[in-house]
Amino acid sequence: MNRFGERFTMTTFGESHGKAIGCVLDGVPAGLAIDETFIQSELDRRKPGQNEFATARKEEDKVEILSGVFEGLSTGTPITLVIYNTDQKSGDYTNVKDIFRPGHADFTYFHKYGLRDYRGGGRSSARETAARVAGGAVAKLMLRSLGIEFASGISAIHGIVAQNLDFNYPKNSPIYALDPSVEEAQKAAILEAKNAHDSVGGVATLKISGLPMGLGQGLYYKLDAVLAEAMMGINAVKAVEIGEGIHSAELRASQNNDPITPHGFKSNHAGGILGGMSNGDDVILRVHFKPTPSIFIDQESTNTHNESVSVSLKGRHDPCVAVRGSVVAESMAALVIADMILLNMGSTMSGIKGYYL
Amino acid sequence: MNRFGERFTMTTFGESHGKAIGCVLDGVPAGLAIDETFIQSELDRRKPGQNEFATARKEEDKVEILSGVFEGLSTGTPITLVIYNTDQKSGDYTNVKDIFRPGHADFTYFHKYGLRDYRGGGRSSARETAARVAGGAVAKLMLRSLGIEFASGISAIHGIVAQNLDFNYPKNSPIYALDPSVEEAQKAAILEAKNAHDSVGGVATLKISGLPMGLGQGLYYKLDAVLAEAMMGINAVKAVEIGEGIHSAELRASQNNDPITPHGFKSNHAGGILGGMSNGDDVILRVHFKPTPSIFIDQESTNTHNESVSVSLKGRHDPCVAVRGSVVAESMAALVIADMILLNMGSTMSGIKGYYL
Amino acid sequence: MNRFGERFTMTTFGESHGKAIGCVLDGVPAGLAIDETFIQSELDRRKPGQNEFATARKEEDKVEILSGVFEGLSTGTPITLVIYNTDQKSGDYTNVKDIFRPGHADFTYFHKYGLRDYRGGGRSSARETAARVAGGAVAKLMLRSLGIEFASGISAIHGIVAQNLDFNYPKNSPIYALDPSVEEAQKAAILEAKNAHDSVGGVATLKISGLPMGLGQGLYYKLDAVLAEAMMGINAVKAVEIGEGIHSAELRASQNNDPITPHGFKSNHAGGILGGMSNGDDVILRVHFKPTPSIFIDQESTNTHNESVSVSLKGRHDPCVAVRGSVVAESMAALVIADMILLNMGSTMSGIKGYYL
Amino acid sequence: MNRFGERFTMTTFGESHGKAIGCVLDGVPAGLAIDETFIQSELDRRKPGQNEFATARKEEDKVEILSGVFEGLSTGTPITLVIYNTDQKSGDYTNVKDIFRPGHADFTYFHKYGLRDYRGGGRSSARETAARVAGGAVAKLMLRSLGIEFASGISAIHGIVAQNLDFNYPKNSPIYALDPSVEEAQKAAILEAKNAHDSVGGVATLKISGLPMGLGQGLYYKLDAVLAEAMMGINAVKAVEIGEGIHSAELRASQNNDPITPHGFKSNHAGGILGGMSNGDDVILRVHFKPTPSIFIDQESTNTHNESVSVSLKGRHDPCVAVRGSVVAESMAALVIADMILLNMGSTMSGIKGYYL
Repeated sequence: MNRFGERFTMTTFGESHGKAIGCVLDGVPAGLAIDETFIQSELDRRKPGQNEFATARKEEDKVEILSGVFEGLSTGTPITLVIYNTDQKSGDYTNVKDIFRPGHADFTYFHKYGLRDYRGGGRSSARETAARVAGGAVAKLMLRSLGIEFASGISAIHGIVAQNLDFNYPKNSPIYALDPSVEEAQKAAILEAKNAHDSVGGVATLKISGLPMGLGQGLYYKLDAVLAEAMMGINAVKAVEIGEGIHSAELRASQNNDPITPHGFKSNHAGGILGGMSNGDDVILRVHFKPTPSIFIDQESTNTHNESVSVSLKGRHDPCVAVRGSVVAESMAALVIADMILLNMGSTMSGIKGYYL
Repeated sequence: MNRFGERFTMTTFGESHGKAIGCVLDGVPAGLAIDETFIQSELDRRKPGQNEFATARKEEDKVEILSGVFEGLSTGTPITLVIYNTDQKSGDYTNVKDIFRPGHADFTYFHKYGLRDYRGGGRSSARETAARVAGGAVAKLMLRSLGIEFASGISAIHGIVAQNLDFNYPKNSPIYALDPSVEEAQKAAILEAKNAHDSVGGVATLKISGLPMGLGQGLYYKLDAVLAEAMMGINAVKAVEIGEGIHSAELRASQNNDPITPHGFKSNHAGGILGGMSNGDDVILRVHFKPTPSIFIDQESTNTHNESVSVSLKGRHDPCVAVRGSVVAESMAALVIADMILLNMGSTMSGIKGYYL
Repeated sequence: MNRFGERFTMTTFGESHGKAIGCVLDGVPAGLAIDETFIQSELDRRKPGQNEFATARKEEDKVEILSGVFEGLSTGTPITLVIYNTDQKSGDYTNVKDIFRPGHADFTYFHKYGLRDYRGGGRSSARETAARVAGGAVAKLMLRSLGIEFASGISAIHGIVAQNLDFNYPKNSPIYALDPSVEEAQKAAILEAKNAHDSVGGVATLKISGLPMGLGQGLYYKLDAVLAEAMMGINAVKAVEIGEGIHSAELRASQNNDPITPHGFKSNHAGGILGGMSNGDDVILRVHFKPTPSIFIDQESTNTHNESVSVSLKGRHDPCVAVRGSVVAESMAALVIADMILLNMGSTMSGIKGYYL
Repeated sequence: MNRFGERFTMTTFGESHGKAIGCVLDGVPAGLAIDETFIQSELDRRKPGQNEFATARKEEDKVEILSGVFEGLSTGTPITLVIYNTDQKSGDYTNVKDIFRPGHADFTYFHKYGLRDYRGGGRSSARETAARVAGGAVAKLMLRSLGIEFASGISAIHGIVAQNLDFNYPKNSPIYALDPSVEEAQKAAILEAKNAHDSVGGVATLKISGLPMGLGQGLYYKLDAVLAEAMMGINAVKAVEIGEGIHSAELRASQNNDPITPHGFKSNHAGGILGGMSNGDDVILRVHFKPTPSIFIDQESTNTHNESVSVSLKGRHDPCVAVRGSVVAESMAALVIADMILLNMGSTMSGIKGYYL
């Protein structure tokens, strides 16, 4: 099941070291100006090889549109976006062909499917997330015209936590830091881990603003539930919080409830969602990434014959997957919201009559 | 969208103060012994009105099977479970008919649908979760015969955190505590909040054991992602963690990776899931519930005419929704696993040939 | 898989001789006046036991609303409609407990599920179609307010074919005949078969008028394809035609193409659908029903031990299932259109902006 | 909605005159040998430009695998098949840029989406069916290893109907005729129409053999219903019959019921399906295609400004779309069966236990 969404849907395909990765977007409304430059700029934000905080793999990540766009506009038919793999070095993986890398999907894919594409993790590689970013960019184009905007950045690295979040700052920071006052310490933590042939975890914070009220569908396609699914499904994510998140479980309701005024909510512990639906306030998400499992320290593992082995990885890997992961999280959030925007149409008879009559 | 799951699916219906709540289970395999006593015992674990730590609303929560079972066995056709509402007191809600209760779904439902069933929150009431527990019980019956078991309990209340988890203890505890050494402090925190006409948040921890390897479908129906969706979709949940969870974002990979041995994993920071698939180890989830928003302290709010009002709630409410919520979380987890068990069949040609030839 | 539709969805449940049959409608927009009298009147059109042309089974088919309606209006939450079984005579089926009735689902259900509810066909009974009619009635209520209307009747019985279709006539005919000039011959064909302990096949013709242009979604949820699925899925249906249907395969394009004028199409060979989408003209369907397989003549069959047996059926059965089947076909068509109406919203950016901005 | 299937799914993309058409297959089991030569041979059966009975458009229709296959085997991940368009002549369509071609999707696409890709019908072109054939070929590879085979051919052209069907003959016939005794007359009918700048309709008959009993899911994913959807969704199809089809509506049950013996059914009026499930007998389908709407005779139509125009088409078109359509029908049938094979797993507890324990 490689499709995401119900109405604005994305199906991704491709492996780390295959010919290409990409996605088919089905459900994009007709008449949307498809700004390729914007899609490419989103891919560039996620692109590896840009500085010392990311993997040295140098993928151009050039997007090509195969279908669904005519004379610059979406036609209502499936939009296919393809990114050809250009810098794959499959040779790096020959030595782990039969070995399970700790913390990786190798073990589970092999046991599920009876075989695996061992080159760079194959389909389970974070490289697939480039397709998500391309797809998310189209969702953002649609949502921008409705006044809905997305922002994200890094709020914590290895336990070094941002105190004040400035969503304008990440574009100036190589680690997409949200708080300049801790940026240097966060950078240092990444480089120390890298120099120790190790990696570190981190936290991304997202903000979605401009949402209409009422997004979220019934009890099993709630806005918060689907956002949680979208985030937890990103490689390396181990926890998701909405609004006050884990802290809310330590509070009393008199502290956690957001008073309502004729001009809006007085606080936003809810993170913009009540009863699984947007309440018009900013949606706030925190997404926790584990440290990149690929490290260059000897590790204890097994091979496909269930024999003990010592794994010594080669290759090129991010010392902190959360950094580029924040861009992926933003893209997935955009896909969720675009889907919810379409699903929400038809909630009321008056809305339907207004549309048709 | 009131359906959960892809192959083992549950569609729930009903409102807090309507005639009934219930669910239709579609996809239950034929030939499963449907043990009504077990289903009822699961509902009894969630049932309100049993002690001072829960709401005084006294629902019998008696389940009735309307379809899908013949001579004690599932027939492969939809199983309908109905629970009639017997103790609803709609009158309690007349005073909040036009008012939005802070922290509740009233505001969003009204703005989405243009009207709302104000009696006890209508469809958004936690009462609907009884249908989930009934449905989850059938999933458990199926999974038990495959050796898959579920356990849960309360690991934290109002910041008082369990140190050692004993999954056998909750059945002896009125607050389903996992750690007897902090149980009394947790109880006290609940009662203090209750006496202050307030409520507290809490955390449930779940353990799923006996899973085969490889559950989880591709990149957009990963086991962890769907569990996160299932948990975040439960009323009042604001954060979900898997395995090491938020802590993993503070670690290095050398600390967080689980070494693999021929006899299994040496540790379980992964929480039993790698690459979105079960790795054969226990799946561990932590589910964070906000404090019950219904409190008996005056709160600032608005009404349907967007005028300022002071809300003074009446009615009967749980002082800590996490307690009974832990049973709901367990039920949702069972539904996820049952679905994944069915979806996983057909992953390999050898499995298909074994089934048909 | 007992759910129909993507956005306006119906999940049905129940067996012929169980406690009840019914459906859950998920996706009904809020604010629709739910006219119970109309729903009941639709059920009455399908109800058995009304005259000599239908089975003598006397079901009251009284619908009860369990959820989703508050103060007469839909609330946007699932609407559950239940019909309790009152006249089931399970004893009639004891003699066929282990026997496969020719032309029935007994054989396939037993081999799929390893067991079967033999009472009246269990879930495979045409009794389940009462739930479809109840659900379709709600769809009709929604569509009527958009100016979309449905009509149907019997165009052929046992090869006696209507020449001129009068969609106002069926309500006056006990066999829902569309052509008064052949009605008596069609009635005679039914009664002759009945007197011979046999049954006959027939054809229903449907007309859907008032459709907006453009209903139908992409290439795999085309309007004609989904209508075909809906019709072929009705018990006993063996063929479906749209517009000119089988006749179109005998024509040249110069005969079959419908010329377009500024005031509409000059002819309607297309049956109101081009490229899988409604073109604004009436949609015309012909649905072919085989003769009711339950007959009272000795037939050659086998039992669950694969032994030869002679089947001698008892019970009460329609001598021509097409008659009441036409009402079911109309109901299924209404469900398809309601779904398409919702899905079509969001096809264009201009439509979305009009809805939200 | 450009996805077909529930578990073995195909999402197609691309337009007649865009860069490429193709499909993503999601749900293909791992370990299937992907025989590219076979896939190409299937495409060659559908390929245009091979003789005087088909369009002169010369597409090479060379398939390329972009993902999902490693070392010759499916890996359980999405398989992407792409066919680049090489012989598109967009210039042929400049004169119909603003004109609606009678019998085509131009009218409905324009009114649904507010714009259209007018080059060769864009997405609505029968060219998209090449992607279906590529996808269907993979389904056939899977099913062949389970002993399930597909055959098809032309049973009627312009009312000239085959009397005896020989499913081995079509491979020797340029019009895929099933009955050599009428082949020449059928050919003549096509060429006469072609010479008159017109086109003719035709009928394809399909046979699926080797099916296990019990394929088909519940009441709303019945085998016959989904086959009907699959067939009616093919360009130009206007009617679908199963087994005895329209003829069954003219019979009595004593004629139409198939007697059951310990060695199988005595006849096959049912067309291999009872109660929406396969009964182990051959599944027989008849698919009725209207004449290709593109003809070179002046026709009455309108343009996008709703003005009367006379359409005079240019370009290259099939004089009888049923011929190549029969290959598409076979491919769609294979996709349906592959899906049903996967869905059927997990129908019984004993099957599940056999799979896992």
